[in-house]
Amino acid sequence: MSAYRYDAPLREMCFVIEQVLQAPQQWQALPALADLDMDTAAEVLAQAARFTSGVLQPLNGPGDRQGCRLVDGRVKTPDGFAAAWRAFVDGGWPALAVGPDHGGQGLPQLLNAVLFEMLAAANHGWTMYPGLLHGACETLLHHGSAELKATYLPKLVSGEWLAAMALTEPQAGSDLGGVRTAAVPLADGSLVVSGGKIFISGGDHDLSDNIVHLVLCRLPDAPAGSKGLSLALVPSVLPDGRRNTVFCDGLEHKLGIHGSATCVMRYEAATGWLVGEPNRGLAAMFLMMNAARLHVGLQGLGHLEMAQQNARRYAWERQQFRGPIAQQPAMRRTLLNLQAVAEGLRVLMYRGAMRLDEAEHHPDPARRAAAAAEASILTPVLKAFGTQQGFQGASDALQVWGGYGYVAEYGIEQTLRDARIAMIYEGTNEIQAIDLLQRKLLGSAGPAFDALLQDLQAAATATPEGQALKDQLRAATDALQAVRTQAAADPEAPLRVADDFLAGTGHLLLAWAWCATVQAVLPGDAWQAERAAVARHGLAWVLPQAAVHWHRVALSAAV
Amino acid sequence: MSAYRYDAPLREMCFVIEQVLQAPQQWQALPALADLDMDTAAEVLAQAARFTSGVLQPLNGPGDRQGCRLVDGRVKTPDGFAAAWRAFVDGGWPALAVGPDHGGQGLPQLLNAVLFEMLAAANHGWTMYPGLLHGACETLLHHGSAELKATYLPKLVSGEWLAAMALTEPQAGSDLGGVRTAAVPLADGSLVVSGGKIFISGGDHDLSDNIVHLVLCRLPDAPAGSKGLSLALVPSVLPDGRRNTVFCDGLEHKLGIHGSATCVMRYEAATGWLVGEPNRGLAAMFLMMNAARLHVGLQGLGHLEMAQQNARRYAWERQQFRGPIAQQPAMRRTLLNLQAVAEGLRVLMYRGAMRLDEAEHHPDPARRAAAAAEASILTPVLKAFGTQQGFQGASDALQVWGGYGYVAEYGIEQTLRDARIAMIYEGTNEIQAIDLLQRKLLGSAGPAFDALLQDLQAAATATPEGQALKDQLRAATDALQAVRTQAAADPEAPLRVADDFLAGTGHLLLAWAWCATVQAVLPGDAWQAERAAVARHGLAWVLPQAAVHWHRVALSAAV
Repeated sequence: MSAYRYDAPLREMCFVIEQVLQAPQQWQALPALADLDMDTAAEVLAQAARFTSGVLQPLNGPGDRQGCRLVDGRVKTPDGFAAAWRAFVDGGWPALAVGPDHGGQGLPQLLNAVLFEMLAAANHGWTMYPGLLHGACETLLHHGSAELKATYLPKLVSGEWLAAMALTEPQAGSDLGGVRTAAVPLADGSLVVSGGKIFISGGDHDLSDNIVHLVLCRLPDAPAGSKGLSLALVPSVLPDGRRNTVFCDGLEHKLGIHGSATCVMRYEAATGWLVGEPNRGLAAMFLMMNAARLHVGLQGLGHLEMAQQNARRYAWERQQFRGPIAQQPAMRRTLLNLQAVAEGLRVLMYRGAMRLDEAEHHPDPARRAAAAAEASILTPVLKAFGTQQGFQGASDALQVWGGYGYVAEYGIEQTLRDARIAMIYEGTNEIQAIDLLQRKLLGSAGPAFDALLQDLQAAATATPEGQALKDQLRAATDALQAVRTQAAADPEAPLRVADDFLAGTGHLLLAWAWCATVQAVLPGDAWQAERAAVARHGLAWVLPQAAVHWHRVALSAAV
Repeated sequence: MSAYRYDAPLREMCFVIEQVLQAPQQWQALPALADLDMDTAAEVLAQAARFTSGVLQPLNGPGDRQGCRLVDGRVKTPDGFAAAWRAFVDGGWPALAVGPDHGGQGLPQLLNAVLFEMLAAANHGWTMYPGLLHGACETLLHHGSAELKATYLPKLVSGEWLAAMALTEPQAGSDLGGVRTAAVPLADGSLVVSGGKIFISGGDHDLSDNIVHLVLCRLPDAPAGSKGLSLALVPSVLPDGRRNTVFCDGLEHKLGIHGSATCVMRYEAATGWLVGEPNRGLAAMFLMMNAARLHVGLQGLGHLEMAQQNARRYAWERQQFRGPIAQQPAMRRTLLNLQAVAEGLRVLMYRGAMRLDEAEHHPDPARRAAAAAEASILTPVLKAFGTQQGFQGASDALQVWGGYGYVAEYGIEQTLRDARIAMIYEGTNEIQAIDLLQRKLLGSAGPAFDALLQDLQAAATATPEGQALKDQLRAATDALQAVRTQAAADPEAPLRVADDFLAGTGHLLLAWAWCATVQAVLPGDAWQAERAAVARHGLAWVLPQAAVHWHRVALSAAV
């Protein structure tokens, strides 16, 4: 049997970018990206594919088995991880989507998204180290003082140093308002930061000499709750070369992503500096949240792709009942379901990334605002729905291997374990659902949701596919109206159905993605015709799932 | 936070046995069980609960972390496993449902099912060792020669020796017709057994001195395929005390059930004896299949119960946003969903066990046949649907812990890993679906299915609950009719929708279980009223899932 491996689906990726979403047209309209063309983009992605398949994927299984170790108070990552990081830095990958003014490559978030889809698929554990780097750069760029920027930004952009986000404390998980880590200002403008954090990915490691911690903390006399949180930059090595009093006290033993060091951190009167305004720490961090959550959604897509392409290969190799099991109807159904969801999700993830590019680069402020508004709606759906599909898809795929699927050496069980975390971190999927329905759609984003539905409507042509999409658009509109009515009488009602509303919206978006795929296919191209067939399979066999979610939303509204 | 632990839900169990299913009335009608009353049954279960919570559950986490090791060619199980087995034997538990004529306790399969629900919940890995013991005893009892019975049955019934089932070979997974292990008869009536087997649970271990292997093999000149398979008894220690040439060549590294030794076995011209007729090995093994598959379904229920009771406890202890998270609407929904499915599945599993008792013990042959026919329909549903709910429920429950759910010390991630195997072994869930629809309902079991639906109809009273059940009964009837029609034109059609048909049937059965629960509740009892409320929640919030499955069945029939 062939080994578990990752082949980046470059042809599918480029088809989505060029034909389904017509990203090159967008680039023309954005001055910062106007020099980019599809050939260049395709070449960047081909190089990324070589790195992920050639360097990262071979470290995935060994990294899982070896895991991280705490040796004399310092974290050692699995063999090969540090060298892979140097290769990544040498390739210029860390700065892919950072502007050239700050030493980056100035490529779109879209290509960065495709890169991270590949990275997560090939080696989720390793990908945790650079996972928040772009966000940390953006935070520093927009909220850091000139001095902090001068000291830290270039080395973060280049990847010479890495970053860690330190938010969670034992008593403060989803509820960050409970954060207690204290920051006391000194006369020289620095802070003395003291407190303990948990679940800090890459809080310590041996990939870079310095690790720049962005620590959520509380200044003296700050207001209680989330309005009293500030953000401090706390480097593990101080500008004068001394080690800061930043300690890793332990590593979590986790279900998966064993290659990622999940640290218990202690800041013991550590030296730091304020980033952004006092008590505005959450606002400074939320800036990077759309991109970070999109990237978690991309992990779901990456795992799903990894699972489905290996399941497909295995099913064609494995012989039972006088033929490959891929020909058995139940297996064929499973494989087509997985493929349809992976290809549909890819369209959605890339659409989300394009909205981020537009929000950043469009010359028209109204277009920027509209793109940002759409991104803020897409983000929680892509994060929660994408990761749920990634985990569920890994489990469905595992079944294709039968008993071998349960055995470590076949690889799929690691994908299942690794995929599970993405439903939890960066805001649990339940928090995403509440963010979507309660905070956004019932808040100020109602018009943006209408605009999104309006835009999707364009694909609802007078075809069977178009009718399926039309039904979903109607269901979503009705559901939101029902929730609005009910919320007036029963403020808790939206919270009861937020998960179902998000899942319904995820299916609606998939319906659009499949329609858009069918419509993008060029006649006479057999490979593209297969894309349309896969999309039609999704509309027929996967989309019916939506009904139960819309039904439950209606049910709660009727209570 | 309280530790992850298992409290057998004795009150729920007895409520289902006594009130919902009225098992004591059944016992009165079965001479072999007529001496049993509810008080005795409850006392047996209370003792089982003390054993599982006091002895087995504390070994669950440590056993997972330590796992099994192969030392000098022999398997060492985790610390404490062997002592727990001796305690189990001393308590008389191995022989619970074996008739007193053969040294057993003569208690119903129903109580044995409850026992195994507890065992699997508390320590799935350990439970693998006795898991197939009852089946091995039954096989030997019905198919073994007088000499084999005399030599092996008493020590298997007492638990002094354990049994292993050796079926799978690398090229023969779901397709057992490909088995190649050879058995050559000698003049003295023994066999020389040679071949390799994989995935043999308990193929070697240190719980008992002797391990009795039941090996699927092929006699010289046997027909090809599954009609040429025979069953051989191959003990690891021969009657004269010499070790047989039975070797464990390796242990699988698995996603879960690390406490269970999953062995690569080699029978190197090992000595064995035929069990049953030549070339009728599968028939001899299928005898034990209903009970074995029901027990796998019970593992699903056990994991679901373990997950939901710990999630509930955690959710009431964990404070976020100024209160226990159990009060948040999304968490409340999750917890109620889990509880409703667990309580509904329990009714179904116990119904399945009662049918086995009736099939074995009813004085009227027609009643025995009818009970066996119903059991043969329920079995694949309980196995596949139960294990799917067990895994899905463990994952849903994990979400309640947030980030802690991903960390080993909180326990739930082990439940998730352990639960996954039950969807695969004892016939994958896909095989169960084909067995239900293709082999049984479209085969000779059509009338038995009608009889089952007729029986469930009794609970479809003129109430909202009854209406929900009525809708399901109609949906199932229509779906089966549609598949029948379609199968005539397109023999592959049933195979495409078998999984959905099974899932739909699982929901239909749950609908009945919830109705029966509502109807069994005594007025004025607050605890019982809560059972009805949980059941009504299931009907309202979980049952809508059925629609997508019936829809897909109809869809394929319409293609």
